[in-house]
This record gives sequence, C-alpha cells and structure tokens, in this order.
Amino acid sequence: MQAPLNPEHTVSDAASTSPQQAAARIRVVLVGTQHPGNIGSAARALKTMGLSRLVLVAPQKYPHNEADMMAAGAEDVLAAAVVHDTLAEALSDCRLVLGCTARSRRVQLRELGPRAAAAAVRADADAGGEVALVFGRERTGLENAELQLCHAAVHIPANPDYSSLNLAAAVQVLAYEVRMALLGEAGAAPAAVAVQPDAAPHAELEGFFAQLADTLDAIDFHKGRTPDSAMRKLRRLFVRTGLDRQEVRLLRGVLADAQRMAGLARKPED
Amino acid sequence: MQAPLNPEHTVSDAASTSPQQAAARIRVVLVGTQHPGNIGSAARALKTMGLSRLVLVAPQKYPHNEADMMAAGAEDVLAAAVVHDTLAEALSDCRLVLGCTARSRRVQLRELGPRAAAAAVRADADAGGEVALVFGRERTGLENAELQLCHAAVHIPANPDYSSLNLAAAVQVLAYEVRMALLGEAGAAPAAVAVQPDAAPHAELEGFFAQLADTLDAIDFHKGRTPDSAMRKLRRLFVRTGLDRQEVRLLRGVLADAQRMAGLARKPED
Repeated sequence: MQAPLNPEHTVSDAASTSPQQAAARIRVVLVGTQHPGNIGSAARALKTMGLSRLVLVAPQKYPHNEADMMAAGAEDVLAAAVVHDTLAEALSDCRLVLGCTARSRRVQLRELGPRAAAAAVRADADAGGEVALVFGRERTGLENAELQLCHAAVHIPANPDYSSLNLAAAVQVLAYEVRMALLGEAGAAPAAVAVQPDAAPHAELEGFFAQLADTLDAIDFHKGRTPDSAMRKLRRLFVRTGLDRQEVRLLRGVLADAQRMAGLARKPED
Repeated sequence: MQAPLNPEHTVSDAASTSPQQAAARIRVVLVGTQHPGNIGSAARALKTMGLSRLVLVAPQKYPHNEADMMAAGAEDVLAAAVVHDTLAEALSDCRLVLGCTARSRRVQLRELGPRAAAAAVRADADAGGEVALVFGRERTGLENAELQLCHAAVHIPANPDYSSLNLAAAVQVLAYEVRMALLGEAGAAPAAVAVQPDAAPHAELEGFFAQLADTLDAIDFHKGRTPDSAMRKLRRLFVRTGLDRQEVRLLRGVLADAQRMAGLARKPED
C-alpha cells in the first residue's frame, strides 16, 4: 500500500510532511560492523541529527558494552535497533536504498554526492516511502552482491589521498546532510532520483528479478554466456527505470507466459 | 591587508584560486581540548576533507599517545600542528574567524549555519585571506572572551533534544562543508536525469518494440487482453529508461530466445 495512510498527505503535497514524519521513514543500516563501539557512535550520530532508526545486519559483536559506552546519551536509539541476518531482510519494505561507498566500485551504480542523496531521501520520505541508507564494514565496505540491492551509491567526496573516513564519521556526514535536507536547507537541490508515485517496494523488485533470472534459464538464454553478467546489466536497467507496482505486475505477466511456453517446448508430450 | 598578494587573483576572480590554494589558507583551531584522542580524531577529520592546518591552543594533554593513535594515517597533520598559549596568538594573522558553538550564547554574534559558514570561508580564502574555524572545549565550549575574538558564530542545527555532537564529529561536519564549498558544490544542483552516453537511436528502439510486440503474440500474452494497452505501458517504461545500444541488443537477445521457445512449443513435431 503506497498511498499515505494519513489523508492529509498526498504525493503531490510533500510540504504537508513534517521533518519528524519524514525522519521516521528513514533507517540507517550498518552491515557486518566489526567494532561494537562504532555501533554506539553511529547511534549517537543519528540522534544528534534527529534520526532514530538504526538497523544492524549481522553485527560481529552485539550487544556489547563498548556499543553502550559510545552511545553516550543515545541509548534509546541503540535499544530500539533492529537486528537482521541479511541485508535483503533489512530492506524488504524499502522503496529507496542508497549504499555508501568509499569510492567507485566495479558495480555500475549511479553515484550521488551526499547532498543529492539527502535530497532524494527527503523527496522519497516526504512521498511516504521507506528509505534506507546502507553502510558497509569498516575495512571492506559493502560487497558487490550487497551493492546490487541498492538503487544508487553515495560517495562522500573525500580527499583522494586519504579518503578513510571512519564509519561513525561517514554516518555523521550523511545524517547531517539528511537533517539539512529535512530542514529545507539543501540548497533547494532537486531530487536527483526520480520518485515514482507508486514505486514498487524492494521486495517486489527482487521478486521480479528472481523470476527474470528463472526465465532466462528456461529459455536457454545463458547458453555460452555468463548468467551473472546479463542479470547485472538487466538489474541496472530496471533499477534505473524506477518501476512502479503495476509495471512490475505487467513484466511478471510477460515472464510467466514466456516460462509457460518454455515448459511446453520442453515437454511436447504433455 | 585585504588585497591578494598574487596579482593574478582578485577578489572578483575567485576561479583562479584552486581548492588546494584556498585550503592552505584555512586553519582549524582547537581551544583547551581535554581529551588528546579528540585532537587525533580532529587531525583525521581534517585530512579526510583535504585540510591540513591544525592549531592547538593550550591543550590539556599534548603531545599524547592517544592523539597519535586516533590520528591513524593523519600523523602528518598532527606533526605539523602549531601550539599556542592563547587564542589571540593563534588568530593574529586571520581575516575571518568563525567560532563553533553548540547553541546561541549570551555574546551577541551573527550566527551562521555550517553551509553559509563554509561559503564565507571559501570566499575569504579565495580572496587571499587567512581563515580560522575555532572549536572550544568538550564540555564547556568557548568562553565569552574567546567568542568575542570571532567575527561570527557557527551553529550546527542539531536535534534540540540531543545536540551533543562530540568535538571530532563537529570538526568533521564543518570540514566536510568547507570541502564541499571549495569543490564548488555548495548549491550546485545535481544532474536530474542521467544521460546515457551511448543512447540507442530511434530506429533501434522501434526495432526492439516491434520484436517485443511479436514476442507477446508468440507467447500468447494478449489472450483476453487488449494488445495496445500492454504495449503502450511497455513503451512508456522503456522510453523512460533511456536504453543504450548494448541494452537494446541484450533485450532483443532475450526476446529472440523467448520467440524460439514459443516456436518449439507450437511445433513439437519439428
């Protein structure tokens, strides 16, 4: 259900969403955090910037007293943190997912600066969407498979000779930009990511991609080609498009018929 | 002395000052820092954002191995740090001095947000001025006498219910804004629509749409549905995406295999 529950807001009436309402739709997801102190520091960074939803994916040590110590006044954010086993679970109801990366990666994703990212976060949260900002491991960041769950990458334009912002510093900078955007001080930058009014949530997109992969197998598409490369390109294409829910249903209908035909071709005796 | 020393630049010709030249005119001054670890963290925050001039006024414990530990890769910034006994000495050659405060103080000073402060820092540094960003003690901030040495106060608009950014986090946010200003991204609107570098020309798109329509027929997709409506929606979707030529070839490859399977399904005897 994409329509806002509160009849006061509509997609075209973003001004009626308060910064607090928008902030409540924004989660910060830490993936595979190694040092529990960083989880506490991140909780603190969120709270200073008026955010409250911390999500942990497979943290290496948690709960841990170092997390509590570093939270220093943001224990409420830490206590409310949700823990998941996989990033996909943490994102299942999200409509916009931005992955923070230290630098451009092999994965081809559109890259946004923090300010443009914050504008996109605000636009989507104002329109009623669930939004995630995803941060990877301290040393190694996000894996390619994790980045592929993201709609765009966020890159903090740090000093190229020394770009090692620590995890808490990166969370602080992004949370700060999100707060500035929610307060309306983004420099009035337009949202860089087009928001579909009825955008398909993450889980529906993933369902479509899974069926697309099955269909490619069924029609013998991969013969002599690497399956991963084609799926990567197709994912990129459809993520860029920003499919709405009706379009996902239409495309899945096409795939279902192609799969049915492939089944008939393989079992002519039926 | 307001006029730039180098006759090549003038105040109105900021473009001739490189971000590196401007960064070299910006110092970050930490007053009475209590925890040496914060001095190291501040050195790191500066370096990530391309700044290098750290000035310490009467630090409580310095040098100190905690400062070295927290600097982690920014030891050069720490080694070059200048120590003064008083803030006045640290600012003697400065043309613009901005004091960071947790909140409005009794001292009547113009108050700037971090973005406006960074724009002012850039303008002055571009024009050849020496600029200082001053941060006070962890617990008590800057004293009134110290704030009176500042031309304006900078206030990070944190969550009013929990505004306690730690010292390193505040330095990180300000240094980040300064870097964004030096890179010229202060208000620059991001590109709203990504331009595909190798966009498929019209005829290739139409070839793809014709094959898509044929494929829908072949897999019996239209059964009970109006063909036009589905094709209209699919056209709209793919036109919006802005396909490049390689993507058109990829999609046509998928369609060709679906068509082949449909052919096999219809003529099992072949």
